[in-house]
Amino acid sequence: MMRTRPLKVALLGCGVVGSEVARIMTTHAGDLAARIGAPVELAGVAVRRPDKVREGIDPALVTTDATALVKRGDLDIVVEVIGGIEPARTLITTALEHGASVVSANKALLAQDGAALHAAAEKHGRDLYYEAAVAGAIPLIRPLRESLAGDKVNRVLGIVNGTTNFILDKMDTTGAGYQEALDEATALGYAEADPTADVEGFDAAAKAAILAGIAFHTRVRLDDVHREGMTEVTAGDFASAREMGCTIKLLAICERAEDGASVTARVHPAMIPLSHPLASVRGAYNAVFVESDAAGQLMFYGPGAGGAPTASAVLGDLVAVGRNRLSGATGPGESAYAALPVSPMGEVVTRYHISLDVADKPGVLAQVATVFAEHGVSIDTVRQQGKDGEASLVVVTHRASDAALGGTVEALRKLDTVRGVASIMRVEGE
Amino acid sequence: MMRTRPLKVALLGCGVVGSEVARIMTTHAGDLAARIGAPVELAGVAVRRPDKVREGIDPALVTTDATALVKRGDLDIVVEVIGGIEPARTLITTALEHGASVVSANKALLAQDGAALHAAAEKHGRDLYYEAAVAGAIPLIRPLRESLAGDKVNRVLGIVNGTTNFILDKMDTTGAGYQEALDEATALGYAEADPTADVEGFDAAAKAAILAGIAFHTRVRLDDVHREGMTEVTAGDFASAREMGCTIKLLAICERAEDGASVTARVHPAMIPLSHPLASVRGAYNAVFVESDAAGQLMFYGPGAGGAPTASAVLGDLVAVGRNRLSGATGPGESAYAALPVSPMGEVVTRYHISLDVADKPGVLAQVATVFAEHGVSIDTVRQQGKDGEASLVVVTHRASDAALGGTVEALRKLDTVRGVASIMRVEGE
Repeated sequence: MMRTRPLKVALLGCGVVGSEVARIMTTHAGDLAARIGAPVELAGVAVRRPDKVREGIDPALVTTDATALVKRGDLDIVVEVIGGIEPARTLITTALEHGASVVSANKALLAQDGAALHAAAEKHGRDLYYEAAVAGAIPLIRPLRESLAGDKVNRVLGIVNGTTNFILDKMDTTGAGYQEALDEATALGYAEADPTADVEGFDAAAKAAILAGIAFHTRVRLDDVHREGMTEVTAGDFASAREMGCTIKLLAICERAEDGASVTARVHPAMIPLSHPLASVRGAYNAVFVESDAAGQLMFYGPGAGGAPTASAVLGDLVAVGRNRLSGATGPGESAYAALPVSPMGEVVTRYHISLDVADKPGVLAQVATVFAEHGVSIDTVRQQGKDGEASLVVVTHRASDAALGGTVEALRKLDTVRGVASIMRVEGE
Repeated sequence: MMRTRPLKVALLGCGVVGSEVARIMTTHAGDLAARIGAPVELAGVAVRRPDKVREGIDPALVTTDATALVKRGDLDIVVEVIGGIEPARTLITTALEHGASVVSANKALLAQDGAALHAAAEKHGRDLYYEAAVAGAIPLIRPLRESLAGDKVNRVLGIVNGTTNFILDKMDTTGAGYQEALDEATALGYAEADPTADVEGFDAAAKAAILAGIAFHTRVRLDDVHREGMTEVTAGDFASAREMGCTIKLLAICERAEDGASVTARVHPAMIPLSHPLASVRGAYNAVFVESDAAGQLMFYGPGAGGAPTASAVLGDLVAVGRNRLSGATGPGESAYAALPVSPMGEVVTRYHISLDVADKPGVLAQVATVFAEHGVSIDTVRQQGKDGEASLVVVTHRASDAALGGTVEALRKLDTVRGVASIMRVEGE
């Protein structure tokens, strides 16, 4: 049954994603109407540069006054694709207060203020959807909060940043160093002029916070996520990884502790076995592994960014929110009832690959092994290579806490026979 | 906000899946209540063998009278995990008539009578959910009908039957023949005593019909799906595939024609390149590729069968349907507005790998090539191998219609110099 009065949609932001959303709303208007049960009408577009020509968008709809737009009071849905904290936060809150439901692609904002935004949506009986905020087009938020709503998720392990995956993949396949690979990513448009948010892991950490929150029904904020960037990964690390039958990926990892009583969330580069499905995720693609009690291991794979893929996720939400408007219902809101504590990085348990530069003389291995033992870190394998009076020692540990490993490394640095700790890399996905 | 009156759930069937659903409903009652907003209560369990001991299920809830159970009138949700057409169809219809929403894992029934069941659900203002009907625990129905609701899906390409993937994987990795691999699958419990539904492609065809219907917003019934089993795949076919840099998988393929005006759905064994992500899907796992206009290529991977994984999908639906009950709304129903014609197999366009046994004498290749040209089938590569007066000719074509290829093969069989057509296999996923 088709309603004839259209749903009014305002678009905040008309850049790469917003213009694609507007384009599909126009070119696929009939399909969207059929799927929602009512036509959708683009009622306004808030932009910073009103003079820019925007193909297919009626100039009369364009405004620089986003605040006035979200206060109109006749909007059904506001789509926020501006990004960043402000003015996005105030605009979303104002839109909800004035009766609109909101579809957002804003990972930074959701990771920082998701709880407050969800509370505002609930207070006003409106929806807040944000499938596009994590891993672009890949359906991930909806599967986690709906498909797996009857299951217990124990682990989310994913490549959620396309820029850094492009760089690491390039380093892996061509032997390039970090800077060279970054330059290529920048030239091809995969990295921004200032790549900090990507290469330092801020973008992935925001996504990890969102995923952990939904997966564990617990509030996890950006500050709760341990974050290490990938700017110090070297060609030598890739060589070490290959000797282990591994490659290196920047991973977002959200885990429930084995006793189930706490969770952790972290982003850092790590070795993963070449046999792991995440190892073969190429270029700027994203993929996320989800492990749960009943479903077992699931993987979701696809383009993690880009105008059209992100628009696909935004429009999927638009259809869902539109249907909810028509039926007078709202979809699932924040689910944080479990309220599990988020443990610090020191309590994370994993394996480690440590390269040491040591003196090439008898007894060094015994000394090093003693330090590991004293800190309760069990060694899996050691490989020793001598060269001109110096030697390198590669130690791979069994599972140990990050705190225990940290104590071990501190003690190793104090040994006379240890000239330096060349690299420490976690080993995941085994 | 928690409602205290519980949602009453009846379970039809208590086998591998049903017992797992009942178990999780009990052990995770608190989580389910928090996620739905009301407790769920197991109100009755219909079984065939009432005397069987069912751990954790109150014997007072067990009945053999499924009809009386679904007619009680106080049920909120009926979970149907009996399988097969009858009595499942009548029970689901009766449950909807008596005010219950339905969660089903019944692919055969949905593929045959989905339209009528959806109509009954809509008439009575109730939900009909069936995530578990396709690819077990893998969220697929919900992503297709909700996450991609704002996109245009062009292709669904998947491994949706774990039994046949186990057998083909075994043949590929060990060189075993079909019968040997089937015997192992049976011994390990991956294949049923009568494996017909799996190995002849009926199970995959039902899933293809469901996926095509949702992906293309068009009614696609089991009868519309072209179906070929995999019992005739030989070790020799795998050798041929490897020479092509391919492996062989039983694929369910749903495609929109290039002009967008019609769709096709089919199940058959096919060669796919080893570089394709589906090629590395091992054992009894399932994976489905989805290609759409805006999102691009997405893949969903996970366990495609088994009690716990299927129960995970059932319970995800149970939570969604439970939330809908509380809000007085219903989720998305059948979406068949596009009503595209389903074209016959002859109109499918793909590539082919054909092995011919031919006389080893001059001019044979020219004769064969002429037949292909006369039928408008363009040849990509030919490989000729002589042996003792006989020769084999392996032809790989460019894209051509199934009808054109059929005509070509018919004409080839009439050539004196062609002793036989050893095998014909489609090449997909390039």
